[in-house]
Amino acid sequence: MNGLHLTADLNGVEATLPLMLDPEALRALCQRAVEQADLGAVGELFHRFEPVPCCEQTGITGVVLLAESHLAVHTWPELGGVTVDVYVCNLGQDNSAKAEALMGWLVAAFAPRDARLQRLQRGAQSPGLSPIR
Amino acid sequence: MNGLHLTADLNGVEATLPLMLDPEALRALCQRAVEQADLGAVGELFHRFEPVPCCEQTGITGVVLLAESHLAVHTWPELGGVTVDVYVCNLGQDNSAKAEALMGWLVAAFAPRDARLQRLQRGAQSPGLSPIR
Repeated sequence: MNGLHLTADLNGVEATLPLMLDPEALRALCQRAVEQADLGAVGELFHRFEPVPCCEQTGITGVVLLAESHLAVHTWPELGGVTVDVYVCNLGQDNSAKAEALMGWLVAAFAPRDARLQRLQRGAQSPGLSPIR
Repeated sequence: MNGLHLTADLNGVEATLPLMLDPEALRALCQRAVEQADLGAVGELFHRFEPVPCCEQTGITGVVLLAESHLAVHTWPELGGVTVDVYVCNLGQDNSAKAEALMGWLVAAFAPRDARLQRLQRGAQSPGLSPIR
């Protein structure tokens, strides 16, 4: 299935931001952004990690399943890090602009010090990766 | 967060394979493969699309949230297509070999005619994409 997969690896995000710690805050942002982007949510799942001795992980991991594929967000407040994945298939129409808009809103909401964005073309005949910046 | 993101875009998968149509079959495969790979599932969500006039989509979309990030699978039986994402962060240890093993089992289970695999290095200082084949 041809489609566009956008990834963002964020650093320097404020560790006390509710989006980093509170699954309900992150869920609300994701729901709002998916709706604004005119993509179709068909399910969602968010999990907050309890601190564990091995790695002191205290963040959130969450996903919104889309009619067009998925949105996934993982936060590491202890490191000020976040990753975001937006993958949309292009069945019936090109959803690339919606994916770019969704990613833009999510990255802006975390206000990172720096962001590494990559754009991966999916599908058998696609050209592969092109860095965004 | 540095990590490894593997993607597989599969074509020529048998449309009547239970894994293409039955969320419980796909869920069981994913659970088993995650366990075999010694990765940590913290939640899962699978959804079956009902056929709709616009695009005749009848497949499954599903995700397993991992302590190490996520596994996502989308099927398009009407096209014989499947996409698989395995993303593992390398917090505390390098989980790359586990990710490669998990992806290998999943691709083999779908027995595609052809597979396009890509390997994306995630994180602020990572080198980006390298095609597997």
